[in-house]
Amino acid sequence: MTTHLSPKREAFSDFVSDVQQHICDTLEAIEGTTKFRIEDWEREGFGHGSTRIIEDGEVIEKGGVNVSKVESTLPPVLQEKLGVAESEFFVTGVSLVIHPRNPFAPTVHANYRYFELYDARDGSLKDQWFGGGADMTPYYLFPEDARHFHAVHKEICDKYDPQYYPEFKKECDEYFYNHHRNESRGIGGLFFDYQRPDENRSADELYNFARDAGYAFTDAYIPILKKRMDNDYTDEHRYWQEVRRGRYVEFNLIHDRGTLFGLKTGGRIESILMSLPPEVRWVYDHHPEPGSPEAELVEHLKPVDWINYPTED
Amino acid sequence: MTTHLSPKREAFSDFVSDVQQHICDTLEAIEGTTKFRIEDWEREGFGHGSTRIIEDGEVIEKGGVNVSKVESTLPPVLQEKLGVAESEFFVTGVSLVIHPRNPFAPTVHANYRYFELYDARDGSLKDQWFGGGADMTPYYLFPEDARHFHAVHKEICDKYDPQYYPEFKKECDEYFYNHHRNESRGIGGLFFDYQRPDENRSADELYNFARDAGYAFTDAYIPILKKRMDNDYTDEHRYWQEVRRGRYVEFNLIHDRGTLFGLKTGGRIESILMSLPPEVRWVYDHHPEPGSPEAELVEHLKPVDWINYPTED
Repeated sequence: MTTHLSPKREAFSDFVSDVQQHICDTLEAIEGTTKFRIEDWEREGFGHGSTRIIEDGEVIEKGGVNVSKVESTLPPVLQEKLGVAESEFFVTGVSLVIHPRNPFAPTVHANYRYFELYDARDGSLKDQWFGGGADMTPYYLFPEDARHFHAVHKEICDKYDPQYYPEFKKECDEYFYNHHRNESRGIGGLFFDYQRPDENRSADELYNFARDAGYAFTDAYIPILKKRMDNDYTDEHRYWQEVRRGRYVEFNLIHDRGTLFGLKTGGRIESILMSLPPEVRWVYDHHPEPGSPEAELVEHLKPVDWINYPTED
Repeated sequence: MTTHLSPKREAFSDFVSDVQQHICDTLEAIEGTTKFRIEDWEREGFGHGSTRIIEDGEVIEKGGVNVSKVESTLPPVLQEKLGVAESEFFVTGVSLVIHPRNPFAPTVHANYRYFELYDARDGSLKDQWFGGGADMTPYYLFPEDARHFHAVHKEICDKYDPQYYPEFKKECDEYFYNHHRNESRGIGGLFFDYQRPDENRSADELYNFARDAGYAFTDAYIPILKKRMDNDYTDEHRYWQEVRRGRYVEFNLIHDRGTLFGLKTGGRIESILMSLPPEVRWVYDHHPEPGSPEAELVEHLKPVDWINYPTED
């Protein structure tokens, strides 16, 4: 295999490791005594990564912030999907899921990644793209939280292109959708993929956008976590959180392309499935009482213009 | 649509309803005060069914024994799979999953079904097959339980064909396998599908076999449930049960053809997902201690000749 050199892959590799550290540090500062466990892994001829897991914290019941850097031959299933012949690829990314203990604090997911594709014969760069996003899954609806999460992401988007926010917000609403339930996974956020440089937009600009989005994650989520993590809650709130976590599992195992792709192409199982919530419950045909806060959440599990949603504050 | 008349579809319809009643009665007799809730459903132009759910019982934490009778036009995805043109089909079956509360009592799943395919023009019978099986998923290994479960099924098989048991046991081992974990879902049982009448075997004989297997389910499972349902257990046993239930969810949502087919072709979501366990837990990279009873179970999650497995009793 040719050694591939590209300025963006080095830069993005540095970024994902740095933002991983930044996010873990920020979460640990809130958590207090519980720390992330670091599990570095390496697989010959495939790649390496750093899985950082936190479990049984006071604030975070389960969470993972993972980095991986993979350089390998494109599996046939992905050759077909991308419509290319035998190729080599490089992909690096950071992926996180945080499941707070408190039912009033939302679960959050984010991912920022960069992909390069090379000609198998001479190692020349044939394709490259950036992708990423962040989305939030509350158990109880606080419209001001949803608005804040979207507003932070809109601000980053608007610095680059006024079309970014509406486009990536829509992609997020469409992607994180439990089709078999006809409901959104949560209140959405951003989802962007296959962002390739072209005559209008340089690789530098795309890189800067993905990087800014990645560093904005803590601004988007941490104030919400801090605001809700000490709320009083009852067994009933917890019960509802566990039922809704079941929907999270359903999305990740039935619909999530990344999870299924990872499982079917030999990714590291435990790093992929770290996204699954800790304590989960399935109840037959469970429906919240009409007019309840639980029902209010479900009524909002559809595309909503959170930026302009009327809130009291 | 032509009205299709076939002696087997009436007989099998009666059988699934009767065996449903038999199984629910048997389980209720053990349960004591908690009863199955009956939810009959009907969808115009599709079919009808009876979903029977038990939750929060003393013995059964969650379970369902469902019957459905569907007559409709074959969806394109199934036309392609079966290699046929536009057709009408009829399918009836009974499907059950029982999740006992006690971690020493195994989860069990069974399903018996009959399918007919008709020419869309004249309504003539073009194809018909029987399918079914039962498999058991313990949380702690009792080899004598596994042997009993297999022995009851082998006895039914041997009445019809000495090849049945080895063949259907193998199919079960292959089907109920969590490929992404490289482990079996449980200790297996029987799995048979596409059993079509031919010159060697009449529709009557295939029907009788599926029916005998269905009525044998209680003989295979109930003695095991009775033996284990009152075992003392600790929080640690329960914890392990919840972790293993996570693997059950993974199988059903990632690999189970029936679940995925149902979800993607508009089946009744709650009847399909009644199979999911009540309280479930995901722990990052959980491994039982070497030499522990939990590790002993995991070591046996592979094809095992349970009939000839050495046991103490």
